[in-house]
Amino acid sequence: MDIDARRQADPDHWNLSSAIRVLAMDAVEAANSGHPGMPMGMADVATVLFRNHLKFDASAPHWFDRDRFVLSAGHGSMLIYALLHLTGYEQMTLDQIRNFRQLGAITAGHPEYGHVEGVETTTGPLGQGLANAVGFAIAEEAMRAEFGADLCDHRTWVIAGDGCLMEGISHEAIALAGHQKLGRLIVMWDNNDITIDGRVSLSDRTDQRARFAAAGWRVLSCDGHDAADIDRALTEAARDDGRPVLVDCKTIIGFGAPNKADSSKAHGSPLGREEIAATRLAYGWSSAPFVIPDPIMADWRRIGQRGAAARAAWNDRVDSLPDDARNDFARRLGSDPHPRLDAIIEAFKEQTLASRPKVATRKASENVLEVLNAEMPENFGGSADLTGSNNTRTGGQGVFSPEDRMGRYLHYGIREHGMAAAMNGIWLHGGFRPYGGTFLTFTDYARGAMRLSALMGLPVVYVMTHDSIGLGEDGPTHQPVEHLAICRATPNTLVLRPCDQIETAEAWQIALSQDATPSVLALSRQNLPLLRTDTSENLSAKGAYVLREASDKAAQVILMATGSEVEIAVEAREALEAQGIATRVVSVPSMELFRDQPQEYRESVLPRGPVRIAIEAAIRQPWDWLLLGERGSEDRSAFVGMEGFGASGPAPALYDDFGITAAAVAARAAALL
Amino acid sequence: MDIDARRQADPDHWNLSSAIRVLAMDAVEAANSGHPGMPMGMADVATVLFRNHLKFDASAPHWFDRDRFVLSAGHGSMLIYALLHLTGYEQMTLDQIRNFRQLGAITAGHPEYGHVEGVETTTGPLGQGLANAVGFAIAEEAMRAEFGADLCDHRTWVIAGDGCLMEGISHEAIALAGHQKLGRLIVMWDNNDITIDGRVSLSDRTDQRARFAAAGWRVLSCDGHDAADIDRALTEAARDDGRPVLVDCKTIIGFGAPNKADSSKAHGSPLGREEIAATRLAYGWSSAPFVIPDPIMADWRRIGQRGAAARAAWNDRVDSLPDDARNDFARRLGSDPHPRLDAIIEAFKEQTLASRPKVATRKASENVLEVLNAEMPENFGGSADLTGSNNTRTGGQGVFSPEDRMGRYLHYGIREHGMAAAMNGIWLHGGFRPYGGTFLTFTDYARGAMRLSALMGLPVVYVMTHDSIGLGEDGPTHQPVEHLAICRATPNTLVLRPCDQIETAEAWQIALSQDATPSVLALSRQNLPLLRTDTSENLSAKGAYVLREASDKAAQVILMATGSEVEIAVEAREALEAQGIATRVVSVPSMELFRDQPQEYRESVLPRGPVRIAIEAAIRQPWDWLLLGERGSEDRSAFVGMEGFGASGPAPALYDDFGITAAAVAARAAALL
Repeated sequence: MDIDARRQADPDHWNLSSAIRVLAMDAVEAANSGHPGMPMGMADVATVLFRNHLKFDASAPHWFDRDRFVLSAGHGSMLIYALLHLTGYEQMTLDQIRNFRQLGAITAGHPEYGHVEGVETTTGPLGQGLANAVGFAIAEEAMRAEFGADLCDHRTWVIAGDGCLMEGISHEAIALAGHQKLGRLIVMWDNNDITIDGRVSLSDRTDQRARFAAAGWRVLSCDGHDAADIDRALTEAARDDGRPVLVDCKTIIGFGAPNKADSSKAHGSPLGREEIAATRLAYGWSSAPFVIPDPIMADWRRIGQRGAAARAAWNDRVDSLPDDARNDFARRLGSDPHPRLDAIIEAFKEQTLASRPKVATRKASENVLEVLNAEMPENFGGSADLTGSNNTRTGGQGVFSPEDRMGRYLHYGIREHGMAAAMNGIWLHGGFRPYGGTFLTFTDYARGAMRLSALMGLPVVYVMTHDSIGLGEDGPTHQPVEHLAICRATPNTLVLRPCDQIETAEAWQIALSQDATPSVLALSRQNLPLLRTDTSENLSAKGAYVLREASDKAAQVILMATGSEVEIAVEAREALEAQGIATRVVSVPSMELFRDQPQEYRESVLPRGPVRIAIEAAIRQPWDWLLLGERGSEDRSAFVGMEGFGASGPAPALYDDFGITAAAVAARAAALL
Repeated sequence: MDIDARRQADPDHWNLSSAIRVLAMDAVEAANSGHPGMPMGMADVATVLFRNHLKFDASAPHWFDRDRFVLSAGHGSMLIYALLHLTGYEQMTLDQIRNFRQLGAITAGHPEYGHVEGVETTTGPLGQGLANAVGFAIAEEAMRAEFGADLCDHRTWVIAGDGCLMEGISHEAIALAGHQKLGRLIVMWDNNDITIDGRVSLSDRTDQRARFAAAGWRVLSCDGHDAADIDRALTEAARDDGRPVLVDCKTIIGFGAPNKADSSKAHGSPLGREEIAATRLAYGWSSAPFVIPDPIMADWRRIGQRGAAARAAWNDRVDSLPDDARNDFARRLGSDPHPRLDAIIEAFKEQTLASRPKVATRKASENVLEVLNAEMPENFGGSADLTGSNNTRTGGQGVFSPEDRMGRYLHYGIREHGMAAAMNGIWLHGGFRPYGGTFLTFTDYARGAMRLSALMGLPVVYVMTHDSIGLGEDGPTHQPVEHLAICRATPNTLVLRPCDQIETAEAWQIALSQDATPSVLALSRQNLPLLRTDTSENLSAKGAYVLREASDKAAQVILMATGSEVEIAVEAREALEAQGIATRVVSVPSMELFRDQPQEYRESVLPRGPVRIAIEAAIRQPWDWLLLGERGSEDRSAFVGMEGFGASGPAPALYDDFGITAAAVAARAAALL
């Protein structure tokens, strides 16, 4: 069917969808950068979705029981900005559209969560939105099981492109979704056959439909420019038969642009004045740039109010709940820490001080989680197939599955990236605090999503065990060396490397108190003694503190260390003190938190003068700051750690071989004095 | 069929495969750590492969035309160690087997490339081996096309487990292999239905056979414990019909262990003395731990010599080549830089100095590649669907495809991780120097494989463009901030961030001269002026050097910068000099190379005394060393760069907004004086 025929077949739809297309063309042209082709290609599908299917109310972007709409192909950001503007989201003014991609506008090049109401998650790095959506759908199932369909009863709709489907993360996401039978997850594939380099056939011949079917998905299809056919497909897709749904939407990128449609020329640059004029002509669209004729705008605004009645009814149901239930529900939708968190941690620390366990911090973490999970139904745990190694599952936790949506532990499978992205989605959905485990070295596999936790400000918790050469025989592929530096280099990321069970409890207290920052808990495989001797306050929250004071107040040496190396520092102190060298030990569970302390405090912990040695079984890069800066000096400091990759062998042999020992530390200190 | 029946059905095979199983059990038991279950489960398949199919000669592990065998499920390392020992690889003595997982032994927990002849690639992080194998198969096709089947005619065999197939990278790898019709790539899937957390059904219900078929693979299957059935399947698999092959080998993990087989208990811990005794009984194996009966060992050693005749014939064919062809072929199999590399670069630099182009360094990189690729057939380029943005394809480069195996440019698709892993495989295979491009921020997606480039010491080249907020409107998801720090934190990784076309040429010269270190070229999107005024030597090779001397020899200020920020430093110097402040500009294209310079040189570039300011549109972490260390001081230094994530907007507006300007630099310097 040619454009004229389509236009005449359904003029109402045509006008609505063309409004999206012209806004996308105009905004990209004004910005002189951006991606017009995707919004133009998917405007018909999006119009049908918003007009007939998506449960939303433009006047209440945060309504909990809305359907979630995720634009995984985030480069097509003008699609969602146009939709938000047209349906009447207050923030999304015409000025914002006119200022697309300009500094200070909310209309960033890619949709940014937190900048724009109606943008459910930050997308741009391909595949992330799709994988976040799996988390949304998991959280919806879990909340519905817990609170009932009266309070939670919605779907997750995703637009994904060929790029999303080529990325490895898509495999992890769709396999997880298929396994978990997330029947309310619907992915609309913008099957336009074009990538940046050219036709998809240049780099791929995957039968995507067969691939999704192999992962347990239901596969539908439609002509992505035929409103009736789209509507038929989405209606069918919305029926939950226990399988997630792929809707193969056959579309044309840059739909209607006479010379650039169906080519990569429509993908990532403005169409240009001439082509835009020709396209307007083809559309039968005569109004000036950025101008939407009133009747069309009025139609769109009515669409924006489609969900008002449903929302009012939902509000009534919430209002009619008993106080306790309503308060509990409201608490779960908020981001405040659990009211009992501090009390639970304090009691746990007292008990720890009494029992003095010598355990790996991964085990200490399990011990903390045992008491936390018993009282905090919002904790949603999991591991990328290392449950027994990460110690992430606690006694009372059922396993989340199609058969048990009340389970609060998820076997994510061998899918670190998919896990991290799903955790982001679970938090974004609301209702849960997700945590998930793998080995610290496999942050490499999860990096793409971990960066987005930080960028979006999502307080998810990464339980990263086996955090050094201390893991031993598995060897250098499994031994993190640069990963603490990587996590510390990432903005808005809290890295916590506790040295014993008390610091581990404090780390969890800190992590579960965050509302806008993800935490990485770096935990040991090997057993560590209890080093803390008091529980008065959360000293870890200061980032660094004096764990052992020098016998003489005027310390000659300050030993700084984290995690499993604090024990080495304490031993080295004994040796140095025995030689009459006054030595202070500073535990540094979190550099980020220490950096935030007032200078006076930092100076009290790290006064100018004493020799400083930092000990960490990792590379030096993040330590220069504390060794050379903060009143330190090059001539009176040293680092004891790793300079390259690790090796395979028993942990004690490795520590000896790499010279990370109390004797080596003491010798270095003595030499510097 | 029960064990006794299997044993009696084919006693020769049984004895050969049981030798692998007992060695695996014994070595893991002696190490008190490791993974016995996988070698026990795949011993039958491996025995048939080595006995009847794999082209190899144990006395010549480096024979170029051998089949490649990749143990992607690297935790089952005892499988390959046992095979190497039994077939007679000289290095793999019984002592090495006895010292499995001990420090200093070549029998590391996971197979490490370079430690052990016969180990073609380092595996352990799941899915990597499978993705490397795609690179092996690409390189084989390309070398065969170029040099003929007389010189290059072999297959790549992979053993992959459920973990490999769940990881996202597997999707990228199998889609790429299917697209490229790599008919000599054969993946034997150890389909044992067990992961660490339990049965596969706990986390996955993917129909792997259908999934591979959807990606264009041929799918076969066999009973993984029936030698005849395995042989039938591998015979069929070895026939190249233009599709890569998946062989679904139904196996039992810990095969034969009466109480632990077919459970995750057999996966990652020693079986224990009692279970081992019971298993030996079940096998009918009576010899002591580590003892292989002579007749069985003799059979295995004969297998190790199976390929001797083929190798001799291949040697004859090589010897009979004309001198030029033989030398050329030999050069291609080596790792020396191209003999014309230096001359090409020098001429290019001269020409650049004359034409003084103001271009983005990504464009400068293309300009260099144009002249390099014209003479260096070993350069094998590609991009993860950003060809026009990464500027990675040069004029004469054909596109590598099933239709043109002489193409030396690969459209990797939107598969950063798969690309990086394939590059590793291409280098490991021999014959090519791979380079591949994406945006610097998407090192996040490729991290897993980039770390392995470094760990294995493979001089592949990552062409990472759009290396800062300078990319502009695409916004914070696409703007690297921590990625230079991440790459610099990674051991054995050369990070090169050139400031103009001359430094870009020098960076390529350095990268293509490496034989054991990968390089990351960080290149700008935005245009940069030519700043270098001489081409006398490769100054970038010193890591940092004086680009502009202070007017007065005794500089009061030293400005250090990299890449696109060097221009800012030069402008700031003008401003400061105009105020009478003697200012030196130091360009720092590579911190790693500067670190390796003699102290005397480093001191000449960064003398004690002057105020130091470092300028880089990225985070500070790697700079503390040069600001506070190297005779610097906290009170007389500052960093002008990024403290958090970027934003969406035109590049100049972003530089202004984040305060990375010449004026800001000059003001900071003046304030510190």
